[in-house]
Amino acid sequence: MIITVTLNLALDVTYQVPAVDWNGVNRVSTVHRRAGGKGVNVARVLAALGRDVLVTGLAGGPTGRAVEADLSSARLPTALYGIAGDSRTTLTVTGDGSTTLFNEPGPEVAAAEFEGFARHYEQLLGDADAVVLSGSLPRGLPADTYATLAALAADQGVPCIVDADGEPLRHAPKGRPALLKPNADELARAVPGGTPAEGAQALRGQGAGAVVVSMGADGLLAVTDEGTFAARMPYTVRGNPTGAGDSLVAGLALGLVEPAPWPDRLRRAAALGAAAVATPVAGEFDPDVYADIHPQITIT
Amino acid sequence: MIITVTLNLALDVTYQVPAVDWNGVNRVSTVHRRAGGKGVNVARVLAALGRDVLVTGLAGGPTGRAVEADLSSARLPTALYGIAGDSRTTLTVTGDGSTTLFNEPGPEVAAAEFEGFARHYEQLLGDADAVVLSGSLPRGLPADTYATLAALAADQGVPCIVDADGEPLRHAPKGRPALLKPNADELARAVPGGTPAEGAQALRGQGAGAVVVSMGADGLLAVTDEGTFAARMPYTVRGNPTGAGDSLVAGLALGLVEPAPWPDRLRRAAALGAAAVATPVAGEFDPDVYADIHPQITIT
Repeated sequence: MIITVTLNLALDVTYQVPAVDWNGVNRVSTVHRRAGGKGVNVARVLAALGRDVLVTGLAGGPTGRAVEADLSSARLPTALYGIAGDSRTTLTVTGDGSTTLFNEPGPEVAAAEFEGFARHYEQLLGDADAVVLSGSLPRGLPADTYATLAALAADQGVPCIVDADGEPLRHAPKGRPALLKPNADELARAVPGGTPAEGAQALRGQGAGAVVVSMGADGLLAVTDEGTFAARMPYTVRGNPTGAGDSLVAGLALGLVEPAPWPDRLRRAAALGAAAVATPVAGEFDPDVYADIHPQITIT
Repeated sequence: MIITVTLNLALDVTYQVPAVDWNGVNRVSTVHRRAGGKGVNVARVLAALGRDVLVTGLAGGPTGRAVEADLSSARLPTALYGIAGDSRTTLTVTGDGSTTLFNEPGPEVAAAEFEGFARHYEQLLGDADAVVLSGSLPRGLPADTYATLAALAADQGVPCIVDADGEPLRHAPKGRPALLKPNADELARAVPGGTPAEGAQALRGQGAGAVVVSMGADGLLAVTDEGTFAARMPYTVRGNPTGAGDSLVAGLALGLVEPAPWPDRLRRAAALGAAAVATPVAGEFDPDVYADIHPQITIT
């Protein structure tokens, strides 16, 4: 079973409005509400691939209950940890040509709440084959939170992927994660100067087992204990890149539970990322695109 | 006990955004979530005046649960009736100078759900001294819904106020409500042509016991079985007129349960409406403004 951890679970709401009047009253024609957060997207992809998954994270208030209800209706198994604050909502308003996003600040998490979550998470690790830690941290949690959770997994011999940015990424290697998955910009911020390969190697030197750098249409760079590999895409898939990184991470998580040579792992992960671009909704991928692009990805 | 009926209960959400980027990502600095709908505002005012109230209406889904949780935290007694659809959210985004409203379409109510609600409501009427029916109807309900609910109250001898617009207002007199409370525009739409007094008299002729027409800063016109009265305001209160009509209706509801001459009823109702303008939040009123303006309102 693969556990995905989403500490900043969200309710992703989308409003379609025929034409937005920014100084008036707008009738929303269509409303979609969906559980979100990067770990949820990863879990959706893994579940679609037939994998046992468990979604955990912090959820609270009416919005947290709405997130849990949506996960349940999507038949994703959950073991969420309750907090006092109300979980955040993200709102996307799409009008005629414009797209506006509103991100709520979300809950502030108390130290005692995180301690409670950490104990809950340690118990879940007993049944886990791998763990995915991904997305932003809610307010109140220290920057080394992912390092802490990765270390708890490492202590129990459970391999862990961290997909983070900024300080949480910089601290992550201390937790001895099996894998870090920054994109090129995130890597450059975490390890300024140098090539992506040098940055990835630096994170390995600090404790990460391997580093896979996602570079959009330019494919992947993986620095591992088997060597350095590049995955090159045969063509560019057009569509919505939101969620492509999460689909890629789902592919990398499969590589942790089904040991395979790195070139095979990378090819599958890169194909899943590209196939997610072909769908409008984060957490989904297009199986036809996957089947088409997978054999054409070259690993060098 | 006064029952307020809100068939289209809402979660009123307010986002404050420092400066809105209509083609980008906005961090929301402050979020407020509050149970809304006209009957909820009426109940808040009545509760602030020390009256026993009961909030009923249709609520469903995660948003309905959020509405109920907020009513509970505001200590407003509720007896909501559950429906399958998700209750609506209204969103107000306030940026630097702009205010944008988004109204969700809300749930579609099935005929069987309304029948279930009507039975629930009939039971509640057993303990009611008065009923307030106010606000828009959710999709799926016929235009004579308020007439139906008013008639059920009349059958049990419970006086009823209807605050509605359009077709629901036009049908309402058939239910023999004690009182209709249109504003001048709503009355002109329901009874085109003629003066407000003629329009009000026409609605009485169709079955309404009395009609009170709200005219903003111009005060009130009441056509009753005691005669026709006008309430004139001594000065204009500046502020937020949202919710002023609901505060006025709360005042009129008091007049149904504490029989008093119409001039006294009107003075209190007009003062409550004006005192609500002085507060930024619907469902609240400023007691100082109430105390100041009440004795200065003239009734002719």
